[in-house]
Amino acid sequence: MKELEERIITDGEVLSGNILKVGSFLNQKIDCHLLKKMAKETLKFFPKEKITMVLTIEASGIAFATALAYEYDVELVFAKKTTSSNVNGNLVSASVESYTHGKTYNITVPADYFTKDDVVLIADDFLAKGNALKGLIEIVERLGATIAGCVVQIEKVYQNGGNKLRQKGYKVIALAGIKSMENGKIEFV
Amino acid sequence: MKELEERIITDGEVLSGNILKVGSFLNQKIDCHLLKKMAKETLKFFPKEKITMVLTIEASGIAFATALAYEYDVELVFAKKTTSSNVNGNLVSASVESYTHGKTYNITVPADYFTKDDVVLIADDFLAKGNALKGLIEIVERLGATIAGCVVQIEKVYQNGGNKLRQKGYKVIALAGIKSMENGKIEFV
Repeated sequence: MKELEERIITDGEVLSGNILKVGSFLNQKIDCHLLKKMAKETLKFFPKEKITMVLTIEASGIAFATALAYEYDVELVFAKKTTSSNVNGNLVSASVESYTHGKTYNITVPADYFTKDDVVLIADDFLAKGNALKGLIEIVERLGATIAGCVVQIEKVYQNGGNKLRQKGYKVIALAGIKSMENGKIEFV
Repeated sequence: MKELEERIITDGEVLSGNILKVGSFLNQKIDCHLLKKMAKETLKFFPKEKITMVLTIEASGIAFATALAYEYDVELVFAKKTTSSNVNGNLVSASVESYTHGKTYNITVPADYFTKDDVVLIADDFLAKGNALKGLIEIVERLGATIAGCVVQIEKVYQNGGNKLRQKGYKVIALAGIKSMENGKIEFV
């Protein structure tokens, strides 16, 4: 998506440790015009009539998932990274290794938030090694619902997580795909 | 807001420890029709032309704030509860005591996400003792921006946080105000 790529070039920052910072327009301060366009762009890849639910992971996936839920006119669920005192009932969980934060955590959703008839669009802000998406896929499969596919705002293609998921047969769409960030210079696929 | 009150009665659960669980439609699984209506209802209390920014706190405030940013056609910022490795620059912080989780944490936003000309609508899912809103207010005041007011989806009026803020002169709007939850029975203002 051209406009997203241009914005990454203008306002993204490449930090040490191979980290792309897009907090100023995409994941902590959020430009809602761009967000809306990204949600509408996603409609081109996943037909509106099939999707019944959007699933993401807290916290930085929630804004994009909310925009998708607005455009698809469906419900949204986010997986939690910590178990809150005010959750009861059956939780379905998966283990996720975080590239950015250097730790492994459990993500959970209450089982009764889904039915086996749900067709789930999985959404997240970043795709690098693919661990968050793998965890979300695992959860949907355990719940017995159908996965329509995954959409991410930015894929770091060179970290190969997206391609591994595609090889397993999952449809994975990135609105911007980064080929390399060597010496702070961002190149897109 | 009648529809929200009815939904709280139908799908909310009163748990021990004076906790109202609305995860199944409002803050983990989110009904986007209701969310959209809540954002549109907010327009009645805060004029669209004045607001330049929506501010909330991760994670359960983000969906509502995104819907507000959609309706107000402005940018959205959320305060983080943990300092991530990929944030640099000047952070403005405030200390927040969590009623639900029984601990105190720092919330932060990068100072350069705001200008002194911003007129900020502060949004959150719940208002009980008012600690999260107080923290967000403190941040906006430190940044020198203007506070339009605060909007929450649900206020537990009997915990008095909202009234303390109103007495200090802040405009605080709750889309549903709970007067009591004694013996699991929810009564609205």
